[in-house]
Amino acid sequence: MSTIGFIGLGQMGSPMAANLIKGGHSLQVFDVNADAVAQMVTLGAVAAQTPGQAASQADFVVTMLPNGDLVRKVIFADDGVISTLSKQALIIDMSTIHPFETDALISDLSLQGFEMMEAPVGRTSVHAIKGELLILAGGTKSQIERAQPLFDCMGSETIDAGGPGKGIRVKIINNYMSIALNALSAEAATLSEAIGLEFEDAMKVMSGTPAGNGHFTTTWPGKVLAGDLSPAFMVDHAHKDLGIALDLANQVNVPMPCGAASRELYSITRAAGRGRQDWTSVFEQLRVTSGLEAKIK
Amino acid sequence: MSTIGFIGLGQMGSPMAANLIKGGHSLQVFDVNADAVAQMVTLGAVAAQTPGQAASQADFVVTMLPNGDLVRKVIFADDGVISTLSKQALIIDMSTIHPFETDALISDLSLQGFEMMEAPVGRTSVHAIKGELLILAGGTKSQIERAQPLFDCMGSETIDAGGPGKGIRVKIINNYMSIALNALSAEAATLSEAIGLEFEDAMKVMSGTPAGNGHFTTTWPGKVLAGDLSPAFMVDHAHKDLGIALDLANQVNVPMPCGAASRELYSITRAAGRGRQDWTSVFEQLRVTSGLEAKIK
Amino acid sequence: MSTIGFIGLGQMGSPMAANLIKGGHSLQVFDVNADAVAQMVTLGAVAAQTPGQAASQADFVVTMLPNGDLVRKVIFADDGVISTLSKQALIIDMSTIHPFETDALISDLSLQGFEMMEAPVGRTSVHAIKGELLILAGGTKSQIERAQPLFDCMGSETIDAGGPGKGIRVKIINNYMSIALNALSAEAATLSEAIGLEFEDAMKVMSGTPAGNGHFTTTWPGKVLAGDLSPAFMVDHAHKDLGIALDLANQVNVPMPCGAASRELYSITRAAGRGRQDWTSVFEQLRVTSGLEAKIK
Amino acid sequence: MSTIGFIGLGQMGSPMAANLIKGGHSLQVFDVNADAVAQMVTLGAVAAQTPGQAASQADFVVTMLPNGDLVRKVIFADDGVISTLSKQALIIDMSTIHPFETDALISDLSLQGFEMMEAPVGRTSVHAIKGELLILAGGTKSQIERAQPLFDCMGSETIDAGGPGKGIRVKIINNYMSIALNALSAEAATLSEAIGLEFEDAMKVMSGTPAGNGHFTTTWPGKVLAGDLSPAFMVDHAHKDLGIALDLANQVNVPMPCGAASRELYSITRAAGRGRQDWTSVFEQLRVTSGLEAKIK
Ligand SMILES: NC(=O)c1ccc[n+]([C@@H]2O[C@H](COP(=O)([O-])OP(=O)(O)OC[C@H]3O[C@@H](n4cnc5c(N)ncnc54)[C@H](O)[C@@H]3O)[C@@H](O)[C@H]2O)c1
Ligand SMILES: NC(=O)c1ccc[n+]([C@@H]2O[C@H](COP(=O)([O-])OP(=O)(O)OC[C@H]3O[C@@H](n4cnc5c(N)ncnc54)[C@H](O)[C@@H]3O)[C@@H](O)[C@H]2O)c1
Ligand SMILES: NC(=O)c1ccc[n+]([C@@H]2O[C@H](COP(=O)([O-])OP(=O)(O)OC[C@H]3O[C@@H](n4cnc5c(N)ncnc54)[C@H](O)[C@@H]3O)[C@@H](O)[C@H]2O)c1
Ligand SMILES: NC(=O)c1ccc[n+]([C@@H]2O[C@H](COP(=O)([O-])OP(=O)(O)OC[C@H]3O[C@@H](n4cnc5c(N)ncnc54)[C@H](O)[C@@H]3O)[C@@H](O)[C@H]2O)c1
Repeated sequence: MSTIGFIGLGQMGSPMAANLIKGGHSLQVFDVNADAVAQMVTLGAVAAQTPGQAASQADFVVTMLPNGDLVRKVIFADDGVISTLSKQALIIDMSTIHPFETDALISDLSLQGFEMMEAPVGRTSVHAIKGELLILAGGTKSQIERAQPLFDCMGSETIDAGGPGKGIRVKIINNYMSIALNALSAEAATLSEAIGLEFEDAMKVMSGTPAGNGHFTTTWPGKVLAGDLSPAFMVDHAHKDLGIALDLANQVNVPMPCGAASRELYSITRAAGRGRQDWTSVFEQLRVTSGLEAKIK
Repeated sequence: MSTIGFIGLGQMGSPMAANLIKGGHSLQVFDVNADAVAQMVTLGAVAAQTPGQAASQADFVVTMLPNGDLVRKVIFADDGVISTLSKQALIIDMSTIHPFETDALISDLSLQGFEMMEAPVGRTSVHAIKGELLILAGGTKSQIERAQPLFDCMGSETIDAGGPGKGIRVKIINNYMSIALNALSAEAATLSEAIGLEFEDAMKVMSGTPAGNGHFTTTWPGKVLAGDLSPAFMVDHAHKDLGIALDLANQVNVPMPCGAASRELYSITRAAGRGRQDWTSVFEQLRVTSGLEAKIK
Repeated sequence: MSTIGFIGLGQMGSPMAANLIKGGHSLQVFDVNADAVAQMVTLGAVAAQTPGQAASQADFVVTMLPNGDLVRKVIFADDGVISTLSKQALIIDMSTIHPFETDALISDLSLQGFEMMEAPVGRTSVHAIKGELLILAGGTKSQIERAQPLFDCMGSETIDAGGPGKGIRVKIINNYMSIALNALSAEAATLSEAIGLEFEDAMKVMSGTPAGNGHFTTTWPGKVLAGDLSPAFMVDHAHKDLGIALDLANQVNVPMPCGAASRELYSITRAAGRGRQDWTSVFEQLRVTSGLEAKIK
Repeated sequence: MSTIGFIGLGQMGSPMAANLIKGGHSLQVFDVNADAVAQMVTLGAVAAQTPGQAASQADFVVTMLPNGDLVRKVIFADDGVISTLSKQALIIDMSTIHPFETDALISDLSLQGFEMMEAPVGRTSVHAIKGELLILAGGTKSQIERAQPLFDCMGSETIDAGGPGKGIRVKIINNYMSIALNALSAEAATLSEAIGLEFEDAMKVMSGTPAGNGHFTTTWPGKVLAGDLSPAFMVDHAHKDLGIALDLANQVNVPMPCGAASRELYSITRAAGRGRQDWTSVFEQLRVTSGLEAKIK
């Protein structure tokens, strides 16, 4: 069992800390919100007055804070984590922050002889309460191994994201995709209603197509990911159908900004001479537009 | 077995016609491309010189053409389908066209005593060849029943979309969602590569979250579809994470226009006072922004 | 003085027709709205029952209709304009329609021996009433010359756009720019208010910069239009400042979808290696992204 | 004549500092780039080893740095500006940074008894060299008065933006508008070329319309700014014309993401029941969508 400094007792941090206590660990907790600290004390935690006090004699320090500026502050402030932390301890930042901030924290700490890994979490506060978070571990093999007992208290699954900084990168990509997809889904569902479809009828169809199942495991593997852009469904046809949907939406006053933006990406793809390629070539084209090297001849 | 006028022998129409012949039907085929007609003749079809000739004495006329203007033209032109068609016959438009054009065709034909239903198809030319298309049937129960033997030659699954005009509506919604999603997926995958992630590692995580599985069957049913907007994951947090991803993308020069557009939808949602609601409230908000009546108090 | 068939007596067409009558011309008017026709008759016009009747024995036929499908219909229908029109007459379409429809109309009419030019109008119904429209004439020199007396009744300025089809092209470009700019202006003004600025104070500054005066006559001529991309203001800096504005807007809940989209265009420009070029290189880059040949080495 | 600590000798800072020296002021300069410092010394400046040294005994400290994090760092670091600065001195930040960072800097400094104003600049490095910058002064009347002699060395025009924090706000709004407008202009000009227009011909027309002159001083004052939304040009027509332009662009492969985004704003405006209002109501609608109070009944 370890001594853990835990900083940030919000919607996520509180249940995570509670589960660490339940797991038998000794917690020294800090939050600017005194109520949150007090409540954790009733569960057996020791209250700290500063981040430094929470870190004192700890084997691990876990941070679960709103953003990277605050993570930096609680670590580097005069009364911050490293004002007391042992150089044998491991800092684990579990917040969702900007990956370049994570990189900078790891490297700035390393210059002063401290070790940090990141382990942002997937799923929601409901899962935090049940100890069923998805842990996206970014660190060396040995750091992850060392932190695993803590992760096992807070989550039901740990994914080794492939090295330091990779955990937060995977987290941001995953969130990007799911958050933007939520908005796109809202567009499709709203248009569906506006043109008189029952949502269930539309869903029934979409649940059997890439509309409902995504492209990563359906259309992409045999095509763009395999380096084959011969058309199963042409960019030109996709572009046409998108045009119909957008015209329709604009006639019935459903704003579809995500879809409208996507049409311009197909337009870029056509301008690059890919109109008769498979629609998955939008990925290859965006790679090229982003300055990455073309992968497919 | 029926006599079928088939008009439009392209990438899709040719294999569909071939499968009807294989199914024992008599085909009278027309296309402006003489080669396409000739090839179908080798399979047993009768060549027609005009759409009207193809429709003459037919039980069904199937159209599989690039757009609605052409469908209208082959039907209503001087030498068009209805210049010869029996009023007992059924026209089945299987093209992907604008739903309001479908509505207009059905109603204009009806005024002259002709019957039309629509049955656009899902999947790709590969499936057309194998007779494994998904048929999205829009028509009355009796029209669909009557057309079923034809559908069974061309597809492996028929979905009754709920009435005339509903087949093409479901088709357009499904295509909208899958085509825009393809572009959004390209953004996520390109960013992933640009920040040094292995695509497989990112996919592994996304395959277990709404990023890979969509929202319709995961986050929405318990929340916005159930009328519950208490937060499992807050709009404000989603908005924040999207901001991180977009900042990151802009630092590494990956254009993400779909995601950028989606952030502004979250902004609209926040402006409406929904920042602390569940992120699925983006759907409810877009409904309201589109002038639909609020569903959730 | 001429005999003119005038078709389409709406918000614009009615005052335009009235001004032609005032100018001494004989008008034969048609509209599906009988009231509009009746009112024009009180001003001295002759009512026609069909487009064909309006065109009969006319020197000119003017169309001022909502869209290109209707223009085609009134011209080519069984009782349409060309059912009676003299081959010496000139059709002038003054509607705002799709340029490719204009092209098709001109060429389809030409095949049957009829002449059409287009002359869409700038400004508003207020100007239509005063006879102060801006006429964007697309036609041969001799067509424009022939139509000039009519234009002089309806407008205060005629611009020869450079040939057949050019009038409608200039019109669409001009409208695109002014309509999208209106939305962008709304974004800037709303953000301004949301962060506590008096609109007048912000305007005062913008009236002296490209923000208020546009780029075509300020930043572009000495730079991208002159083939010089050495930086007066760098793409990288523009991109940075846009990022600040969008972050700010997202903090105060002002959706700025146009600006958000523009940031991704700067991102594309940076990805192409132009970060340290002058910001006007966004134009050159968009040309290249559109598949046009690079102009600047 | 004053003693001035000047920090940030880049493309802008160097000529600004040079002009202060030319104006007779004593400069103590700091930059992390030693070459930039050395060059300023040849013009008569005194080199400082730290920001603190530059600020020592200074009447003013001017900062001209890439971003707000750096401004904060040079001011608050252990060897930063306030480690030596007199409480009678005035800090003037002339960088373009996030307005909320400006607010925080002013208030954090004020807590420690120091005074700061901001004065970001308009125009380019060419104007910096000639001493012809536009100074957007954000501060109290007395601060601006005090700083005026410095501004007169660096700029040809000072605008009092209306109080502390207003200078940077005006700057950001102005830059937002001009930078996004540059991208939008690129779209219009590229489409123009792609459909075969001479740029000069399109410009000729636009120079006489809101497309070239903006809306703030043309269409808005008599309409939305005057509380009058009776239509000179209807939202519905604007929306239609935008649709034509976007369809055209998508046919000729010119991506127009800004315009596409703007169409969805018009769609929101129509959904709110404003289709028959004047197009300037897009501003009023965006205000409402942003959660600001409606101004027009
Ligand atoms: N809520 C979710 O569903 C969810 C899911 C996955 C990841 N996340 C991420 O987890 C992190 C935390 O989220 P949350 O929902 O718990 O946020 P929260 O706002 O509920 O909690 C943040 C806590 O940090 C505390 N805090 C702020 N400044 C502090 C300081 N200087 N010192 C000490 N404590 C301070 C606050 O008082 C608060 O208790 C965020 O990065 C979020 O993006 C959240
Ligand atoms: N290709 C796919 O994967 C796919 C999938 C689902 C739906 N669709 C839809 O199916 C329809 C047909 O697609 P396709 O891929 O076969 O297109 P295609 O371009 O390959 O074929 C269209 C055919 O129509 C013919 N045609 C054009 N004008 C004609 C006229 N006036 N009279 C007679 N024939 C005419 C052409 O000569 C051509 O043979 C489209 O609406 C498309 O959106 C295609
Ligand atoms: N309103 C403006 O400020 C403005 C400015 C410049 C250009 N325009 C363009 O001018 C054109 C006309 O605009 P408007 O504002 O007068 O529109 P409107 O809707 O007021 O008038 C259109 C007229 O056409 C008639 N019409 C429709 N179908 C017809 C048919 N089949 N046969 C005969 N008449 C028919 C209608 O009854 C109506 O009177 C449009 O293309 C518009 O884009 C308008
Ligand atoms: N370039 C323009 O046309 C223009 C126009 C208006 C406003 N601005 C704004 O002016 C500011 C400066 O722009 P610029 O073009 O001169 O940038 P620049 O990058 O040329 O110069 C920045 C200078 O700051 C120095 N610097 C960086 N970190 C430092 C530190 N910690 N301590 C001391 N010096 C440090 C750099 O060495 C460099 O000399 C920016 O905020 C920019 O947005 C620029």
